[in-house]
Amino acid sequence: MSTRRLHLNAFLMNTGHHEASWRLPESDPYSSTKIAHYANLARIAERGKLDSVFFADSPSLWGTIGRRPSGSLEPTVVLAALAAVTEHIGLIATASTTYNEPYNLARRFASIDHLSGGRVGWNIVTTATLDAARNFNLAELPDHASRYARAEEFLQVAKKLWDSWDDAAILGDKETGLWGDERLVYPADHAGEHFQVAGALNVPRSPQGHPLLVQAGSSEDGKAFAALHAEAIFTAQQTLQEAQAFYADIKRRAAAAGRDPDGVLVLPGIVPVIGDTEAEARELEAELDRLIVAEYALGNLAKQLKLDPSELDLDRELPANLPHEDEIEGAKSRFTLIVDLARRERLTVRQLIGRLGGGRGHRTFSGTAEQVADAIFEWFDDGAADGFNIMPAVLPSGLEAFVDRVVPILQERGRFRTEYTGTTLREHYGLARPENPRRREALESAVKGVLAHAR
Amino acid sequence: MSTRRLHLNAFLMNTGHHEASWRLPESDPYSSTKIAHYANLARIAERGKLDSVFFADSPSLWGTIGRRPSGSLEPTVVLAALAAVTEHIGLIATASTTYNEPYNLARRFASIDHLSGGRVGWNIVTTATLDAARNFNLAELPDHASRYARAEEFLQVAKKLWDSWDDAAILGDKETGLWGDERLVYPADHAGEHFQVAGALNVPRSPQGHPLLVQAGSSEDGKAFAALHAEAIFTAQQTLQEAQAFYADIKRRAAAAGRDPDGVLVLPGIVPVIGDTEAEARELEAELDRLIVAEYALGNLAKQLKLDPSELDLDRELPANLPHEDEIEGAKSRFTLIVDLARRERLTVRQLIGRLGGGRGHRTFSGTAEQVADAIFEWFDDGAADGFNIMPAVLPSGLEAFVDRVVPILQERGRFRTEYTGTTLREHYGLARPENPRRREALESAVKGVLAHAR
Repeated sequence: MSTRRLHLNAFLMNTGHHEASWRLPESDPYSSTKIAHYANLARIAERGKLDSVFFADSPSLWGTIGRRPSGSLEPTVVLAALAAVTEHIGLIATASTTYNEPYNLARRFASIDHLSGGRVGWNIVTTATLDAARNFNLAELPDHASRYARAEEFLQVAKKLWDSWDDAAILGDKETGLWGDERLVYPADHAGEHFQVAGALNVPRSPQGHPLLVQAGSSEDGKAFAALHAEAIFTAQQTLQEAQAFYADIKRRAAAAGRDPDGVLVLPGIVPVIGDTEAEARELEAELDRLIVAEYALGNLAKQLKLDPSELDLDRELPANLPHEDEIEGAKSRFTLIVDLARRERLTVRQLIGRLGGGRGHRTFSGTAEQVADAIFEWFDDGAADGFNIMPAVLPSGLEAFVDRVVPILQERGRFRTEYTGTTLREHYGLARPENPRRREALESAVKGVLAHAR
Repeated sequence: MSTRRLHLNAFLMNTGHHEASWRLPESDPYSSTKIAHYANLARIAERGKLDSVFFADSPSLWGTIGRRPSGSLEPTVVLAALAAVTEHIGLIATASTTYNEPYNLARRFASIDHLSGGRVGWNIVTTATLDAARNFNLAELPDHASRYARAEEFLQVAKKLWDSWDDAAILGDKETGLWGDERLVYPADHAGEHFQVAGALNVPRSPQGHPLLVQAGSSEDGKAFAALHAEAIFTAQQTLQEAQAFYADIKRRAAAAGRDPDGVLVLPGIVPVIGDTEAEARELEAELDRLIVAEYALGNLAKQLKLDPSELDLDRELPANLPHEDEIEGAKSRFTLIVDLARRERLTVRQLIGRLGGGRGHRTFSGTAEQVADAIFEWFDDGAADGFNIMPAVLPSGLEAFVDRVVPILQERGRFRTEYTGTTLREHYGLARPENPRRREALESAVKGVLAHAR
């Protein structure tokens, strides 16, 4: 058996995942709209031979702009720009199935897959905020089940569109003037509950066939969807035990759905804070936490817990009578994660805010590069992860520290690539290019026709 | 009065605007999905100091893939990639108001404006094909009037979103931890017939404020829309007289709408076929026409004329009993242009196909570089054009010929820039950055509040 290799994604966000990162002397508070900032980050990640970079997204302005960088460039156009200035690294963006039409979105991802030479991935989300709904003609957030039903059909349509050109459809025969073989275009011909899409995509089948499909929600609906469709899963777990349980659950669900569990990669988020010594790392983390404006963060926390800010006291634990996850509409798993973290470690609201400010519920790990590498191997070797979603607290310095100091250790131990061996994102993640089922259907139908004629 | 300067846009499409261009030995029939091809074209246009490059679009597969390159990358992601590999040239893409949501599209254009440093333009279309409607849950094409009513409101919402951040909204004050001034974010708060959009955009106001707004339809509804909103108009006229009439009509309509007519630039399309001698240019044009597969082109022509192909005879003129433009749903002005061209020059269907194959109804001009420059000046100086939409029959060679041989003549005569003098697309076209009306409204409201308090 060959050595199992780690997969690493860099989750890029403004000046870093710590909400106060923009206040450090090194940070440019205007970086969120600067493509040069993201191009620099993507190149650093590529220097470290990471599998991919990733941008989260929601089509609404989150909260207010008071205390932390808000607003960001739409991520699919950011990926397209980064494709032009990088050569190897995978490029993943979030896009919502609730607030897009499949023809438009399938087309954008297919286009980026072409222009990046097969490096695109789509983090499929259903978008759980009322703010977004109200930007798209709705007064209320559609409920969880109906959002996931739409997502299911959306993906079905998107796959039909990605497969609507046979890989062999383009002939380019200058002699006869035949550019394409019309028989090898398969219109979507989809008539479902949410979508009616008649035609073929107007983009030839892309290098990867389909973009890498990523999923990140951990609600019951989210896990069911991931087990059926996701090829990589970004997840947030705080403890080894939780992560092992999640990992085993996803792999079991994938197998039950008839999929190869090795084709569903689980990547927990980690916020590494790296220092020359453990004390230095802890001091950087503490400095960042001191820069959080507590009263402001309290408002955000109250919103996530569906409470009024007056119900929270900075120097006490969370109130006892919180709702159950089932009563929460949207961002269910985030809600439960926050409450579990606070209860387990008996954190005051102020302490909880510090923990959440660093990685919004993801695991924060402060230490030396060796310690970070050990923490990675512990989860990787103990059935909790196939790799990690790296969420630097500060960007670019936190990503540089990871790439220049942690990655060489992972490489020395033979568990991470020293050069890219493939050209596509699917190849980086060790995943196959999907066959085109439409072609088989078309061939079968043609064979039937010939047989009928022969009788 | 300073010398009036020409504006030049390069309209990029696959291997060129002539439908048989892909069959030339120099052409790569696979270029339509290759970003390197478009990057090369954009760099050639930038070498020629052109104002902009432009990509047309429709969210459907046009016709079949048999006889000419079909399918293309989604143009907003193409612009984003080109922004990363060019420095000066403007980047314009078509996008449909009928098959997009304003929040998504306003956001993508604002994002590309940021990442290009203020170089984006939007060609606003309502998309006149049944094929597209059937990709977006509709059984029929929405009628002309309702598409334009939606476009009108779409643009109104888009402007509210582009103006939803004050230019001064970001403070970036590390000392106090105040990143932004919440009072300087103005939610769209839009509740109309077609759209309800509550929030602010999640992208700060972009370098140009709004993208350059372009329009290209020449129906009555299209001209009315252009006069109200467009800053540049791509148009198709075959004769000087037609072009003068269109030009005068648009300028009059703009003035009647209270706009400065000089702020509405009219750019007729021209397909220049350039040779060392006139004979050489004509031979290149003839060679291209010989490569058209007539029977195939006949099917496309019949579709545009809403006829059955059997009603057309390659060696006769168009049938006498064609419908009137008013009876045509969608692409009205294209219909009339084709019929007028055929009737005026008494063309057989075969001859008409040759003329349309070159530029789909735009003016084709074959000659030496001097002759092309003269043809440009004739229209420019005679009240027919503020510049031109250059549509090379073959790409890249036709664009290279224009840039390297025609542009120097335009420059020598002092009518075209020799270096870029501005940094944004608006500056290239001599157009102002829009003020933010939301700011004035907010200030007035604040002043009223203070006065009321003072009483």
